[in-house]
Amino acid sequence: MIPRYTRKEAADVWAPQTRFKIMFEIEAHAADKMAELGVIPREAARVIWEKGRNAVWNPDRIDEIEREVKHDVIAFLTHVTEVVGPEARFLHQGMTSSDVNDTTLAVQLVRATDLLLEDVDLVLAALKRRALEHRMTPCVGRSHGIHAEPTTFGLKLAGHYAEFQRAKERLAMAKFEIATCAISGAVGTFANVAPEVEAYVADKLGLAVEPVSTQVIPRDRHAAYFAALAVVASSIERLAVEIRHLQRTEVLEAEEPFDPGQKGSSAMPHKRNPILTENLTGLARLVRSAVTPAMENVALWHERDISHSSVERGICPDATVHLDFALRRLAGVVERLVVYPENMAKNLDRLGGLVHSQRVLLALTQKGLSREASYAAVQRNAMKVWRGEGDFLGFLKADPEVTLSDAELEPLFDLGYHFKHVDTVFARVFGEQGSLTAAA
Amino acid sequence: MIPRYTRKEAADVWAPQTRFKIMFEIEAHAADKMAELGVIPREAARVIWEKGRNAVWNPDRIDEIEREVKHDVIAFLTHVTEVVGPEARFLHQGMTSSDVNDTTLAVQLVRATDLLLEDVDLVLAALKRRALEHRMTPCVGRSHGIHAEPTTFGLKLAGHYAEFQRAKERLAMAKFEIATCAISGAVGTFANVAPEVEAYVADKLGLAVEPVSTQVIPRDRHAAYFAALAVVASSIERLAVEIRHLQRTEVLEAEEPFDPGQKGSSAMPHKRNPILTENLTGLARLVRSAVTPAMENVALWHERDISHSSVERGICPDATVHLDFALRRLAGVVERLVVYPENMAKNLDRLGGLVHSQRVLLALTQKGLSREASYAAVQRNAMKVWRGEGDFLGFLKADPEVTLSDAELEPLFDLGYHFKHVDTVFARVFGEQGSLTAAA
Amino acid sequence: MIPRYTRKEAADVWAPQTRFKIMFEIEAHAADKMAELGVIPREAARVIWEKGRNAVWNPDRIDEIEREVKHDVIAFLTHVTEVVGPEARFLHQGMTSSDVNDTTLAVQLVRATDLLLEDVDLVLAALKRRALEHRMTPCVGRSHGIHAEPTTFGLKLAGHYAEFQRAKERLAMAKFEIATCAISGAVGTFANVAPEVEAYVADKLGLAVEPVSTQVIPRDRHAAYFAALAVVASSIERLAVEIRHLQRTEVLEAEEPFDPGQKGSSAMPHKRNPILTENLTGLARLVRSAVTPAMENVALWHERDISHSSVERGICPDATVHLDFALRRLAGVVERLVVYPENMAKNLDRLGGLVHSQRVLLALTQKGLSREASYAAVQRNAMKVWRGEGDFLGFLKADPEVTLSDAELEPLFDLGYHFKHVDTVFARVFGEQGSLTAAA
Amino acid sequence: MIPRYTRKEAADVWAPQTRFKIMFEIEAHAADKMAELGVIPREAARVIWEKGRNAVWNPDRIDEIEREVKHDVIAFLTHVTEVVGPEARFLHQGMTSSDVNDTTLAVQLVRATDLLLEDVDLVLAALKRRALEHRMTPCVGRSHGIHAEPTTFGLKLAGHYAEFQRAKERLAMAKFEIATCAISGAVGTFANVAPEVEAYVADKLGLAVEPVSTQVIPRDRHAAYFAALAVVASSIERLAVEIRHLQRTEVLEAEEPFDPGQKGSSAMPHKRNPILTENLTGLARLVRSAVTPAMENVALWHERDISHSSVERGICPDATVHLDFALRRLAGVVERLVVYPENMAKNLDRLGGLVHSQRVLLALTQKGLSREASYAAVQRNAMKVWRGEGDFLGFLKADPEVTLSDAELEPLFDLGYHFKHVDTVFARVFGEQGSLTAAA
Repeated sequence: MIPRYTRKEAADVWAPQTRFKIMFEIEAHAADKMAELGVIPREAARVIWEKGRNAVWNPDRIDEIEREVKHDVIAFLTHVTEVVGPEARFLHQGMTSSDVNDTTLAVQLVRATDLLLEDVDLVLAALKRRALEHRMTPCVGRSHGIHAEPTTFGLKLAGHYAEFQRAKERLAMAKFEIATCAISGAVGTFANVAPEVEAYVADKLGLAVEPVSTQVIPRDRHAAYFAALAVVASSIERLAVEIRHLQRTEVLEAEEPFDPGQKGSSAMPHKRNPILTENLTGLARLVRSAVTPAMENVALWHERDISHSSVERGICPDATVHLDFALRRLAGVVERLVVYPENMAKNLDRLGGLVHSQRVLLALTQKGLSREASYAAVQRNAMKVWRGEGDFLGFLKADPEVTLSDAELEPLFDLGYHFKHVDTVFARVFGEQGSLTAAA
Repeated sequence: MIPRYTRKEAADVWAPQTRFKIMFEIEAHAADKMAELGVIPREAARVIWEKGRNAVWNPDRIDEIEREVKHDVIAFLTHVTEVVGPEARFLHQGMTSSDVNDTTLAVQLVRATDLLLEDVDLVLAALKRRALEHRMTPCVGRSHGIHAEPTTFGLKLAGHYAEFQRAKERLAMAKFEIATCAISGAVGTFANVAPEVEAYVADKLGLAVEPVSTQVIPRDRHAAYFAALAVVASSIERLAVEIRHLQRTEVLEAEEPFDPGQKGSSAMPHKRNPILTENLTGLARLVRSAVTPAMENVALWHERDISHSSVERGICPDATVHLDFALRRLAGVVERLVVYPENMAKNLDRLGGLVHSQRVLLALTQKGLSREASYAAVQRNAMKVWRGEGDFLGFLKADPEVTLSDAELEPLFDLGYHFKHVDTVFARVFGEQGSLTAAA
Repeated sequence: MIPRYTRKEAADVWAPQTRFKIMFEIEAHAADKMAELGVIPREAARVIWEKGRNAVWNPDRIDEIEREVKHDVIAFLTHVTEVVGPEARFLHQGMTSSDVNDTTLAVQLVRATDLLLEDVDLVLAALKRRALEHRMTPCVGRSHGIHAEPTTFGLKLAGHYAEFQRAKERLAMAKFEIATCAISGAVGTFANVAPEVEAYVADKLGLAVEPVSTQVIPRDRHAAYFAALAVVASSIERLAVEIRHLQRTEVLEAEEPFDPGQKGSSAMPHKRNPILTENLTGLARLVRSAVTPAMENVALWHERDISHSSVERGICPDATVHLDFALRRLAGVVERLVVYPENMAKNLDRLGGLVHSQRVLLALTQKGLSREASYAAVQRNAMKVWRGEGDFLGFLKADPEVTLSDAELEPLFDLGYHFKHVDTVFARVFGEQGSLTAAA
Repeated sequence: MIPRYTRKEAADVWAPQTRFKIMFEIEAHAADKMAELGVIPREAARVIWEKGRNAVWNPDRIDEIEREVKHDVIAFLTHVTEVVGPEARFLHQGMTSSDVNDTTLAVQLVRATDLLLEDVDLVLAALKRRALEHRMTPCVGRSHGIHAEPTTFGLKLAGHYAEFQRAKERLAMAKFEIATCAISGAVGTFANVAPEVEAYVADKLGLAVEPVSTQVIPRDRHAAYFAALAVVASSIERLAVEIRHLQRTEVLEAEEPFDPGQKGSSAMPHKRNPILTENLTGLARLVRSAVTPAMENVALWHERDISHSSVERGICPDATVHLDFALRRLAGVVERLVVYPENMAKNLDRLGGLVHSQRVLLALTQKGLSREASYAAVQRNAMKVWRGEGDFLGFLKADPEVTLSDAELEPLFDLGYHFKHVDTVFARVFGEQGSLTAAA
């Protein structure tokens, strides 16, 4: 976790205190069920909750014990005994460390994902508001970085909105993947712990029961989880790169919010740089870097080895915390993005009407010219405009092979023509609201 | 596509013939709808289907044209004109290359995924059959490569079965992700092609309509697709690594099928090597290697650039074809895996009863010894066995601090104790059938 | 290998014929030395060379045999016996398949790398020629996509030249890494083959002796090799992205070569798209994708397993062939890049003199104003220009807090001031020739 | 940086204090040279050093300023002014933030790499000592996890030693890659800072001058750096996996050190798990995960963007600190590895002499039998042994097609035969010392 890219709410999920609290609750819930099943005394379970429910666990003390016993869960349980008293010896009966660790991790990942889902909602809300605001703001669409045909700025944002809707579904699915509880004992046979304990704890924690755990929860789940986060990060990158492009000096169709007092460059006081979206581009790379190690974690040996553990101590907090930060930052950038419709209009005119070349092409072929001849005629005149020799409409009118009258040619240069299906797309993306209440 | 890891059925999906046939159908279906909408003559659409439906497109000729025009779809359309005649000029009206290319790719990926889904079914069937067969075959469960506690070989396989059920769901979800059709014209505005055309073609091809395409189908879908394949590959690796471990000389609990006539080593005629599962381990790495470039493809510039294209020419055939091959190979290995229950039994005995250490620990604590003292007593005696000094039960009986009588100790070494919940797990994984009809 | 991104020379390195020829030569050289050591008859070695030297090996026949014996090297040797006769039984004495396969791979990788080194020389030559040509062509330098300060187009290219010099060194080092020969027999003990045989074959093939092989050449070498290729691919991407930016409609400072007859877009005849550099961007992603599986190949089990083999059948040809293609394509793009100095000049003027803001800042501080006050004064006036309210120099002259006279302010806007160290940098990069003979 | 995998010495390299101290020194050295060149007053440079040399910079205060100005280097310089006084306004003349940041990063990476080089020396020393100790300790060599032929444990370790020698060279090369200083001002033209300043600071810091910086040091260097670290991590993984295999219950040829008081499992007191090498396996995955983002950082836009920065805030400390920890841990494991020669001997005998099958094969072919017939004869008898039907030598003596007398067969089962070239390999790897002084 890089402090400057970490929100407190996200960091808290991974704080030792949070972890020990969840661990205690898993053990204590399990004790309740074991007491009910007659495996341990009911009184022990009661005392454990009483003394442990609001206990503040001491990470330093646990570390100290771990240095001696070299085992993290045994260290935790020893500390619980120090706090709770002798009843704690009834905890963890028939369970293994992984039962506690893996289920704790599931709870933490669920909480982290809940934050991410909230974050995506912020991004979606910002995108929707700005998309509706700029639903009919004309700008040029670009393929290959080259002016292609007119579109609207709202349409651009609607596309990103649809992508973040998918991001939301992917996160929901990712949460579903990792929200399982395993309390199955050594090598997962339930030899010393009843399946009813697992079912009870799962229910208390809002998790599903892991159908087959082999002491550990299978790591294909976590691989799928981090892959989902990485796709979301890539979607962030796409929008960040779009904004970076739009802020380029020569384009300047939109700009990141720039605060009074902010300094763009230590050496060049005139600079206003898209540093937030550049930062998001980098954070996307960081979040994606969790995917490969998460996949390498899947093939644990036999019923389990512990090679995944060090990886997860890194990627679980890092990827979730940085993605949380990135989504929040992105929502803020979209929300406060400074949009310059006048520059969009200026850029749209830059190519002297060439953005209408396809309509001319289609009109020519519909007039009966072959596709190849039409293409050649349009391209020939376009290249003259490209070379700065004049205006596209003028050249077309003057070209004898262009079999369209001036009256036929002129309407082909109408901008509105391109926007007749904006409503269709908005209805697809935003539903009725998107379709009908642009002004709202 | 590496020929030796390629099945013909999978390669056919990516053959130029297949691709051109799909491209033609997209264009011809679009023409039907355009004719209905009055954009092009009905007769043209009829002739196009008549002459093109069963045409054999000539990839060499298309390549030849492309070398001149340096544009793949224009080359294709030019060739269609050569075959279909002048009516072909009505094709592609208002469409862009990406409308055809991206929708074609969607059809190919759907077909490739359908093969993968069939393959996973083969893996599942093999795993289920062998899991039921070995439901109660005892073997040692290992954590960290070290003997832990008894389990059954059927339980091992049931775990992999559950993982491949998830693999199947992931593939189904991945197919859903990429099964969309986009025919939205330049920069995705439908300026020159009606949304009805897209809806019609999508329906004909069994695809969903892409809600917002920006000339291209957004690549977050493909990133999610390849991520899903990579997780499946990782699950293959886990099972492959398990089998490789089991075939180790010192373990030899199972062995890959070994054909008469096969040579294990050019130099050492005694060798029988797990080369199929080692191969699967490598193929898993290959399939996973598609993930990073697929994610780097997401952030295309503005409405599209074409950097994704070269990547996809590689990873789309390679990842799907190799995964298809790997799943088939895996199904075969599982189906014909040679299992040695007698060696499993021998290995289970190897540690002189140490695999029962936990039960002794639990019994001691239930007798009232503190957890720490119990642990120390068990570990002390276990280490003597570990050093080869004798038998675990004997040492325990002789240890004055072990507060269990011989009559209490002996039943703790019963193997059957560990298998009492095998049925529970089988019922979770295989449902009624798994639970009740092991012998069937 | 994607055919359209494959040069014949590069593909030939990986052709079965090439491979079998190298395999034969390794076996035959080894036979020579074994004959000299008295292990096999001298006559056998002579006959083997005589009959095999110019033999055309039949890959189909070898495949056929492999399908039976399921072992590639045994299949090859069996075919050699068919061609060479009974003397072939003296081949491969005490050797293992890996001795032949790994050493063959080393020869192939060396040859592939020699092509890459030639390719980089082409890139370097093109970059140098264009750098010298545009040594003093002014253009704006951009940080964050925002105009910063003036530079020259030659300086830009000089930076890429220096990077490709490093690329060349990395490739040379990568070649050194993998240019080793191992003929050490089963598990690498030389039990049945003398180290002298290895030394002799290594010498004949121009390879170093692998100090310790464990039947296989250790795969850290190959991991380092593919990592080096991936860094080179990333350098290609950087230059490709630069050109894509320069070709943007709004920038248009340079353009990829565009052939007569070429079609930029099937729908929009006016388009001229940077498709070559977009393609290079994609190819860079593909080449990089070899790194992770190559690294996962390092940890083979014990003295070897064969999981690396399937990976290498993919990445060895793919990464080298595609990188070869990409470097050649890049050299061509640089060589024929269309540069527009007049557009560079126009863009440089676009910000109304803001690119000189740093000089004003420095002059103010040298006049005694504090750094903070100077920065505030410059930024305040710059923001007015940014908002299009007027000209930078004019605002500065009018600002009472700007403690510089008009006579002091005006020379601060001299473009030449920024180019006084171009020669210094060129001398560093191109040496004397770069420094002194720009016009030559 | 995961605290439990972080050594203090390694963390210190990345501490804010360290960073600010280096930043100050770069600025102050630059001031010295500027004073010499007459750009700033000599007295200012003197005072700056006097007041700043031993200053303790206040990271909290700098953070506070950064929150206002949103620029890290300006925040630092503002704080320097607070500490040093008004002379600080002469600092940073004509420089950019990247001049300071990138050069600071270079110094930090150099220091981190110096630690890694020391660490590798520890690994090498441990490997060498243990290799010499076990130079002639027989054990079985395994290919594909299957017993192949005899080797010695020393030979295994010698192979890893050779690999870590390469690791050391790769780290040295990686250090060379990133040990450059850039002080070239905005967009790298030296317009406002003389190249002599860069040369002077580089010399003071022990760095090379970056030939062409474009405001930033080109990131291909850092990509190559992290790739090198990743290859080293993969070599760690290979040795870790070897040890994990050797510690398997069925193999138990070696064991990680296990301290009195350590607990292997919370549930199973008998366990002694190879958790250190499993941990190393995971750390290797973590370190490798830096490679892809580092490569994605190369293609910065134009003269620079800042997307690399967030990535590097993560991967620079994480990869170096975790690799440092992993190398130290590995050195400790090797140093204290518990080796069981008696178990090695036992395992070597396990296959009833099959490990000698190649010698029999060779002897048969040298007796004149064809390669194919020899192979069939040996394999036929080996498979009987494999099936547990008896002893290899016995079967061979009884087989009439085996044309070797008992007197010829028996010496083929001599173990020493396989070790005759151990000295050769040790001489290659360890030089004279390795060759001659095993006992020393």
